[in-house]
Amino acid sequence: MASKRSDHRLQDLEAVAGNGLINRRALLGRGALFAGAIGTGVGTSPTGAAAEPLAVDSWSLGPGNVIPAYGVPAKYEDKVVRTLTNPAGNPGGQNARTPHHLLNGTITPNGLHFVIARAGFPDIDPAKHRLVIHGLVKRPLVFTLDTLARYPMVSRITFVECGGNSGPLFRKEPVQANVQAIHGLVSCAEWTGGRLSTLLDETGIDPKAKWFIAEGTDGANMNRSIPLAKALDDAMIALYQNGERIAPSNGYPMRLLVPGYEGNMNVKWLHRIKLLESPIMAINETKQYTILRPDGKAWQFYFPQEVKSFITHPSPGLTLKGPGFYEISGLAYSGNGRIAKVMVSADGGKSYAQAALQEPVLSKALTRFRMPWRWDGQPVVLQSRAWDEAGNVQPTRAEFLADRGEPKSNPPVTAFPMEHMNAISSWGIDSTGETKHVYV
Amino acid sequence: MASKRSDHRLQDLEAVAGNGLINRRALLGRGALFAGAIGTGVGTSPTGAAAEPLAVDSWSLGPGNVIPAYGVPAKYEDKVVRTLTNPAGNPGGQNARTPHHLLNGTITPNGLHFVIARAGFPDIDPAKHRLVIHGLVKRPLVFTLDTLARYPMVSRITFVECGGNSGPLFRKEPVQANVQAIHGLVSCAEWTGGRLSTLLDETGIDPKAKWFIAEGTDGANMNRSIPLAKALDDAMIALYQNGERIAPSNGYPMRLLVPGYEGNMNVKWLHRIKLLESPIMAINETKQYTILRPDGKAWQFYFPQEVKSFITHPSPGLTLKGPGFYEISGLAYSGNGRIAKVMVSADGGKSYAQAALQEPVLSKALTRFRMPWRWDGQPVVLQSRAWDEAGNVQPTRAEFLADRGEPKSNPPVTAFPMEHMNAISSWGIDSTGETKHVYV
Repeated sequence: MASKRSDHRLQDLEAVAGNGLINRRALLGRGALFAGAIGTGVGTSPTGAAAEPLAVDSWSLGPGNVIPAYGVPAKYEDKVVRTLTNPAGNPGGQNARTPHHLLNGTITPNGLHFVIARAGFPDIDPAKHRLVIHGLVKRPLVFTLDTLARYPMVSRITFVECGGNSGPLFRKEPVQANVQAIHGLVSCAEWTGGRLSTLLDETGIDPKAKWFIAEGTDGANMNRSIPLAKALDDAMIALYQNGERIAPSNGYPMRLLVPGYEGNMNVKWLHRIKLLESPIMAINETKQYTILRPDGKAWQFYFPQEVKSFITHPSPGLTLKGPGFYEISGLAYSGNGRIAKVMVSADGGKSYAQAALQEPVLSKALTRFRMPWRWDGQPVVLQSRAWDEAGNVQPTRAEFLADRGEPKSNPPVTAFPMEHMNAISSWGIDSTGETKHVYV
Repeated sequence: MASKRSDHRLQDLEAVAGNGLINRRALLGRGALFAGAIGTGVGTSPTGAAAEPLAVDSWSLGPGNVIPAYGVPAKYEDKVVRTLTNPAGNPGGQNARTPHHLLNGTITPNGLHFVIARAGFPDIDPAKHRLVIHGLVKRPLVFTLDTLARYPMVSRITFVECGGNSGPLFRKEPVQANVQAIHGLVSCAEWTGGRLSTLLDETGIDPKAKWFIAEGTDGANMNRSIPLAKALDDAMIALYQNGERIAPSNGYPMRLLVPGYEGNMNVKWLHRIKLLESPIMAINETKQYTILRPDGKAWQFYFPQEVKSFITHPSPGLTLKGPGFYEISGLAYSGNGRIAKVMVSADGGKSYAQAALQEPVLSKALTRFRMPWRWDGQPVVLQSRAWDEAGNVQPTRAEFLADRGEPKSNPPVTAFPMEHMNAISSWGIDSTGETKHVYV
């Protein structure tokens, strides 16, 4: 009964694009959703008496549990975890991906922030940790955590994304995997620490300096060469992540934060900043993090993460429970600034409607978009496409490959075939509600 | 040497209020801080050779640890925990306070969000949990978590504060306790869920309805009477806290969120919304959460948390390590909207200077303020005072008590002598750098 009435009311709503996308303003005050709520006899008797008492939950019948000093998620949420590429800790790298299909909002909790570590995460005693700034400076200086705590701080909500995130979209056939496997190497947190420019005010800068290297104190001594201009712009030495000290696997006790730039440049477990005339041309700017072009040449020193979006709800692995109303929602972001617009399609890109952006829309931060939708039970293909304030637009996969070259191989989903994939993702939903990754 | 040079440079900076408050614009590009950083021989030899190699940390010499599926803070941060009033889980209430003196930024991580529970926290199976909306509605409805997941959602960064937070300021003598004990019953998170107004669109509203009660399914069946106008304004049924499902002790799997209102009204473990003509006049609107006035009458139904601020760094228990530069920072918030201004004093309120507010300044959210300061090593008294966009100003303790009445007793710090204390806090720092709670 309910669903028939609901369907009738939903059909009255103004469509704004194909396959059931709805004008969200039309929803307000209409009571037109009825997304599976069920009637109850309680309180509906014409006499005013409750038709039946509310069921009493077993957990209402006695005292509950003791609040822990540091809380953890409910035991029922034990599937909401990072997927690990190397849980045995074998030699080599370890990746941990964020389960965006099971989250909502824009903040990634620290326990679920993505990680890539070349040699696991080090167990650093913060009292012994030091940050040195040297090279082409006037006064090389060493900073302890106690020292850094005295400098002016800033907080910033910003995303960090691996340059290899979304790499599976390079595969010739759509990988049958979920959002976590395809797009799980991006996360977002409120980071707090000192501006790198403040510390460079302290050391002074030799006018010859044009680059700096940032190096971690992990077993891999991960390092990157970064233009000095970024240090003088918005780079931070981050000490806090979502209010508390940075998580051990995300750089405890300090990491470099270069908002919008490749994740790898946000060097974790930071212990050295060295100012130089030129980049050091080590592995991360030669073999890796260069983009091989179809003409055989490569883009080097290509740092900002391009504008991107993907739908998290619904998404592969999540199954729709029958026709009716749903909210399509997902994440959009750009290393070049704020998201200006996200368009959503339910017909594989034939028609699009503009999604609502959750305020505040912050520069270089994950932005949640939402779009009301009535599914009629027929097969559909959902897509999202983002624009940033700098005028960049997320390409279709065909546009992307026309520029960057067709994939020549079909590497496993966990490999990094190439970097900086930001094409549109397509989620196909069949008449049973099953959702899969497709190419259109 | 460094400190002498530093002191000379700091003294050149423009003072904006007594006892060393500095014009923050004067800091930019001056390299004038020198807050205890130490020189190093590395790279400073006139020949260009490093005077000595950087020390190699033991944790750089081998592979690190395995990334966990769900991360936890570093073992060195084991003091960064909530303080518990009833860790044995004896009958009665349990409070857990946020350690603001050890955090930075504005987001409270879920593991450290404050909690007050009348009967511990229930162990709720989310598949069995139901929310019923009934009473003066046209169609009583029952919502499951699966159903709620289909409705439009919103996200909002907002604080929740217990009406009894800062209660220790009612004591006749300044309690010797830290920020966590005095102000630890406020926290801030990004909450995501459905608007209550959307669900009331579904049930319809009987025109006679003017109030609703929200009731939890915990052992205490905590309930509050709330004006229906709040339900139609910004009330939410929150499902997510900082991206992940709400923490067990903060209401898992759902809580009411009434931004800016007394924490107790943000009913955790929510299972019932009942629309009524009038409040039910139960314990939480009669014995508790009423404000006894000096004339013997009481304020009832007094919901928004007033404008407040407090300094977290430095604060009682944190000891300054010698004269020189520090950043004074703290938190400001108002249940009536955005923070408009925070003024900071280092001379016990004789002179004030305007602090910087960390963007974005969001309505009914914690706002971090920061103020540069040069401590000359003499005794000082730090204060902060906040204004909100509605024109409310945080009172001095004398102003507050002149209106609300002098304290008649000296209850223990953990008791709730009275609610809605929002007076200015004063932290006295002596010449050794020790910081204590004082009255001025």
